[in-house]
Amino acid sequence: MAGSNHTPIKPVHRARLDNIAVVLHRPHFPENIGAVARACKNMGIFHLIVVDPLDCDLTRILKMATHASEDVVANMEVYDDLAEALGPFNYIVGTTARRGSQRRTVMNPREVARELIPISQNNRIALLFGPENRGLANRELKLCHTLVTIPTSEFASLNLAQAVMIMLYEIFTASAEFPPDFVPRLASSFELEAMYDHLSRTLAKIHFINPENPEYWMMNIRRFFSRMQLRARDVKIIRGICRQIEWYCEERVERLLREAGVNRVDPEGDCEDRFFGGE
Amino acid sequence: MAGSNHTPIKPVHRARLDNIAVVLHRPHFPENIGAVARACKNMGIFHLIVVDPLDCDLTRILKMATHASEDVVANMEVYDDLAEALGPFNYIVGTTARRGSQRRTVMNPREVARELIPISQNNRIALLFGPENRGLANRELKLCHTLVTIPTSEFASLNLAQAVMIMLYEIFTASAEFPPDFVPRLASSFELEAMYDHLSRTLAKIHFINPENPEYWMMNIRRFFSRMQLRARDVKIIRGICRQIEWYCEERVERLLREAGVNRVDPEGDCEDRFFGGE
Repeated sequence: MAGSNHTPIKPVHRARLDNIAVVLHRPHFPENIGAVARACKNMGIFHLIVVDPLDCDLTRILKMATHASEDVVANMEVYDDLAEALGPFNYIVGTTARRGSQRRTVMNPREVARELIPISQNNRIALLFGPENRGLANRELKLCHTLVTIPTSEFASLNLAQAVMIMLYEIFTASAEFPPDFVPRLASSFELEAMYDHLSRTLAKIHFINPENPEYWMMNIRRFFSRMQLRARDVKIIRGICRQIEWYCEERVERLLREAGVNRVDPEGDCEDRFFGGE
Repeated sequence: MAGSNHTPIKPVHRARLDNIAVVLHRPHFPENIGAVARACKNMGIFHLIVVDPLDCDLTRILKMATHASEDVVANMEVYDDLAEALGPFNYIVGTTARRGSQRRTVMNPREVARELIPISQNNRIALLFGPENRGLANRELKLCHTLVTIPTSEFASLNLAQAVMIMLYEIFTASAEFPPDFVPRLASSFELEAMYDHLSRTLAKIHFINPENPEYWMMNIRRFFSRMQLRARDVKIIRGICRQIEWYCEERVERLLREAGVNRVDPEGDCEDRFFGGE
């Protein structure tokens, strides 16, 4: 007790590793899964998820995992579908070697690691890695809240397990010497995707986006919202606005027609094409 | 060109990678040698030395090195004796997972990477790694100028190539002043306030916020948007959606009334109160 008068303890905040999972999407080689399991164990991560692996040969996985990481392999979850695997996560970090193609902000591993310290206190985080040969496709990057690129020399293609190791090492060593910002629970991927569906329908209805190809136009909307860390209540507000737009239009139409003494002629009628939206 | 006189260029100090070599002492598995060659290529190191390897099967090495790192493998030097291999080097960094046994100062990779920046300008540096199963022995650590331990969770035994990757990654990124993230022009206050006005009118119109006291309800909306750094084009998108909501409602009403052969009765009419909005 006496000592505490002389030594003010500076709290060091670190990421909550038990809230972080490594997600491998379509890995080709069981040896890489094993090497990733070992890297997880080295860096204090115990949650490994594999989605639609090309080969999940346990003998080859365990050879690279080594005896010490058997528990990580035993607890490994295997999914068929990426969206389902990511559903329960509140914050998804996508790794990509491609720069600029998405015109989205891409951070380096150290920046991401620092960002994850406060987020990890109350949220489940997925670190998402694509297949060895081609990385994450655009439709997969779309699911991510933030993107990270590992700085390299000209030859940017890293071995999968080594890329995982660099990310985990940065997270393991990152500590903030200040109280982390309180980050409330963020919307889960389930909630987010349902919101994007709803937005897509509403924006197509008001002809802000082309109903023929809503996914293309929704890319801008996704990029826009992925820059914020949307919380569950933000999602509720946005869906509330969508419902309200629909309600208002119907209500006005009904009332004006009623006042004019006219029966509805075309309750779901479309107006002529007039697209404002997208870019 | 004239501008360059006025813009002091901030010197970026980095390690001179061409003065740095990776030295593997008695590696057991050719796959690890190959994976190290690839890591070297990723991180801009072209000098790989292997001392007394147990197996130097070139096919297995090249399989892991991948085509892109063939030049590193082609230039690889193989020695029988460690002291001979280290002879030409001015500064030797030894890696060890064992802590404290040597009663020598052990740095972490980031500290070593910073230290190597000035040293590498005029000196040849060897990064020395021991065999997979037992690491560097004391007699080998003795040859080193400094020791480094990679921070890990309880399970401290890293895959050889992953340990090399972490060291090279730290050296590659050390002191590198990353080009600042490109920050596009943010919306001006004029643009923002005009957007909030527009949003307020639209949201009041669709009864998402109470038209009696829009400012109060707009606080949530402002809080929501102030979490992002809105850019000029974001503001345009948001105002575009507002216009589109208004256009859609008017258009539908007009068309339905026209089809019903009715003249507009109340173009600015309000519908009954029904507030969703706010929180």
